[in-house]
Order: sequence, then structure tokens, then C-alpha cells
Amino acid sequence: MSDAPVEAFEPPYYAVVFSTVRTQDQDGYSETNDRMEELVRDIPGYLGMDHAQNPGGLGITVGYFRDADALTQWRTNLEHRAAQQRGRENWYETYSLHVAKVERSHTFKRA
Amino acid sequence: MSDAPVEAFEPPYYAVVFSTVRTQDQDGYSETNDRMEELVRDIPGYLGMDHAQNPGGLGITVGYFRDADALTQWRTNLEHRAAQQRGRENWYETYSLHVAKVERSHTFKRA
Repeated sequence: MSDAPVEAFEPPYYAVVFSTVRTQDQDGYSETNDRMEELVRDIPGYLGMDHAQNPGGLGITVGYFRDADALTQWRTNLEHRAAQQRGRENWYETYSLHVAKVERSHTFKRA
Repeated sequence: MSDAPVEAFEPPYYAVVFSTVRTQDQDGYSETNDRMEELVRDIPGYLGMDHAQNPGGLGITVGYFRDADALTQWRTNLEHRAAQQRGRENWYETYSLHVAKVERSHTFKRA
């Protein structure tokens, strides 16, 4: 079950929901995406990430962070900002971003 | 672009992130899922829902609600509770649920 979702943490923590539809122009996307996944792991307070993708359609990424400082570090990271810029210029047809403080959570696992 | 994500609302509002890996036993899942999508639309304060699914793997559903009252109505709905019970008994290998209050959000659309 390598595809199991990130488990619930002790609230409060942050969930960042990033829902996207991509364009036909995906030149460089995959490399940049891999690099971002690598980079975010270095952010103190980064907790984990889940991603699901409808083939050819909507993708949802949810990143989990311990606190607002971690969010700020990630949001203002220069390499991340450059990637966001390229995303708006080339890769995303549309996206919605929701930054939310988790109040309640739990994980279920089949016995 | 029928697959476009739910657009950002004016904060505060709630995002409910439900990330799942399902079992081999999906008997009745699809009908129940359709019924839940129908039922949640009747909850006052329900704002919308996005879903993305890795084929054969992780699925992420994010529901958006205006306030805590809307969450309570949905959480305590009897038909929904019966469906949750069947989900734990049959359909889900594992899931994580995160209930979070959105503090900041935006939507990008290509010009």
C-alpha cells in the first residue's frame, strides 16, 4: 500500500489544497514538479503530500504543514516562486488554491 | 473545461479533505457515492466538491462548506452516517480525513 494517504496529524496544522487543470504545453513540467517535491521536503515543518490525478483532467495535490511559518517559507522560496511563475505562464489552464488550518482529523485503517 | 476545479470563495469557509485507498470489494460503492453527491447538495452552506482519482490507487475528494453548521449537518446526516459505516466495513482499505478552515484562497484562469 505504497499509495496510502498521508496520515492525520495532531491539530492544529495546515492543509494546502491545490487543484489544477493543465494545458497541452507540459514542457518542463515533470522535471520541475519532481524538483519541487524534493525542495519542499527541506522546509522545516513540512509534514507530507498527497496527489491524485484524473487522467487528462483534474489533479488535486494536498500538502500538509505544521504551522504558518512553514507555509511562509514554502510560499516565499525563490525556486518555488519561479516554478509558480512558469506554471501560470505555461502549464496551468486553471487552478484553485485553498490554504486551511486543520481543526479535526483522523485516519482509518482496515484491521 | 467541465473538469475545472471549484473556485475559491471568500474566506473563512471550510475544506474537508478525504483521501482514500479502496478495497477490492466495491459492491454498491458507485450507487452510494452518487447518492451522497446528490444528498450533500441539499445541505445549506454546501459550496462544492472536487474529486481526483489515480487509476487503481489514491483518490482525493475535497468538499467545501460555508461554516461549521453546514459541516455538522453533513456529518450527522443519517443516510451519510450509514454510508460511512458501509465504507469502513467494505469499501475503504484506508482513509484520512482533515477538516480545515480556509484562511486564504485564490483561483487562476488563463486569459
